[in-house]
Amino acid sequence: MEGSPEKKENKKSSVIIGRQPVLEALGSGRAIDKILLQANTSGDIIQKIRQLAKQDNIPVQVVPAEKLSSISRGNHQGCIALVALIRYMDLQQVIDHVVSAGTAPLFVMLDGVTDVRNIGGIARSAVCCGAQAIIIPDKGVGALNEEAIKASAGALEKIQVCRVGSLLKAIDDLHHNGIKVLVSEMKADKLLPGVNFRDPLCIVMGSEQKGVQPYISKAADEHFTIPMSGDFNSFNVSVAAGIILYEAMMQRR
Amino acid sequence: MEGSPEKKENKKSSVIIGRQPVLEALGSGRAIDKILLQANTSGDIIQKIRQLAKQDNIPVQVVPAEKLSSISRGNHQGCIALVALIRYMDLQQVIDHVVSAGTAPLFVMLDGVTDVRNIGGIARSAVCCGAQAIIIPDKGVGALNEEAIKASAGALEKIQVCRVGSLLKAIDDLHHNGIKVLVSEMKADKLLPGVNFRDPLCIVMGSEQKGVQPYISKAADEHFTIPMSGDFNSFNVSVAAGIILYEAMMQRR
Repeated sequence: MEGSPEKKENKKSSVIIGRQPVLEALGSGRAIDKILLQANTSGDIIQKIRQLAKQDNIPVQVVPAEKLSSISRGNHQGCIALVALIRYMDLQQVIDHVVSAGTAPLFVMLDGVTDVRNIGGIARSAVCCGAQAIIIPDKGVGALNEEAIKASAGALEKIQVCRVGSLLKAIDDLHHNGIKVLVSEMKADKLLPGVNFRDPLCIVMGSEQKGVQPYISKAADEHFTIPMSGDFNSFNVSVAAGIILYEAMMQRR
Repeated sequence: MEGSPEKKENKKSSVIIGRQPVLEALGSGRAIDKILLQANTSGDIIQKIRQLAKQDNIPVQVVPAEKLSSISRGNHQGCIALVALIRYMDLQQVIDHVVSAGTAPLFVMLDGVTDVRNIGGIARSAVCCGAQAIIIPDKGVGALNEEAIKASAGALEKIQVCRVGSLLKAIDDLHHNGIKVLVSEMKADKLLPGVNFRDPLCIVMGSEQKGVQPYISKAADEHFTIPMSGDFNSFNVSVAAGIILYEAMMQRR
């Protein structure tokens, strides 16, 4: 992967290199996935970059010089921004938009789903089933990269994606807007068919290995599980999301 | 990938090299995924290998010498067998077993599903939802390799896998045993919730790109589609299979 600000529209080289170009990109509101800073880099511009990144929930990662050089052989000055292929939306704006359109919110929150193909598959099911948005944290989920977009069959470009600095804060925001938060987890007693999906709600799907984090689970309003035959452990997370979203869609028809 | 007959139990090198070892493996009933023959190879043993492979529905592929050398640097004599990680079962035996156990057959047939991760995901859902067998053709589906087994979270080792030389012949066999064949395809009028899944049946899932082949679709008894919101094209095939199998399980509870 190589690039310069001029080549930034090329999906294969969607990087911005150099301190001033990165600072300008941040100021312009351009969607950025992540900023990579060389270890021990400092200075006024770096300071400003860190500030703006924090404001916009853009993760900043400190990496060795070799990492930056492997991304671009240009004069990166210890600073590279990875341009987002997805335009992230503000959660409150998305809620306002959905509610003002007269539809009951149906959102999906991903807590630690790291496999980009699963993320793509979930986005695809979300669009098929009429969900309006996906909420992801700025750390700990797979990147919404080309592979994710491909796996989503383009769905990631059709659904609103809200990237938030804190899932707990997002749950707070959902609650303030009258949106219930439902967690799918294996240990829940309530079974999927008993869940009411007609209300405004957000479904939280946990990581492939560990499920939903305990503090997220605690903040949720309801917990349910998909019934299963036999003693086999569980569905793939993307399949589980598909089954849940299908059930929600059928109840809402 | 490298190996010799002695190392054949090592999953990373599950190949048998050399004419006589391959012939013996065929005679012993050992599960073999595929036989690779070097172009222009002939002789008595090769002739016998071809005969036995045909009898057992084992695909034989003619490949350039470089392909064989890339698999094993040993003296392969133009002949390598790829050992199956899955033990394939006879369809009629599986039917007899399921029926004699007093359960209504619920099978899944894969027609051209090439992505091994999708195959793994489907196997996982099949086990979760109480399906007893997966039917695959000996050509045109992804290999049930380590990646598929990993994606299935081990489900491919828990479900009966029947590999057949002809899907049409398998449909015939299913019909003779009173098992209905249902095809999931986007153009069908009937919607999923209207399908009766209580009878003995087999669900056919088509390829990611083209769906179920027309001649397979014609031989089926019923066709249905998963309802969708909006105009987005479709679910991922593994998710679609999960939704269908979930619906079948819920009706059967």
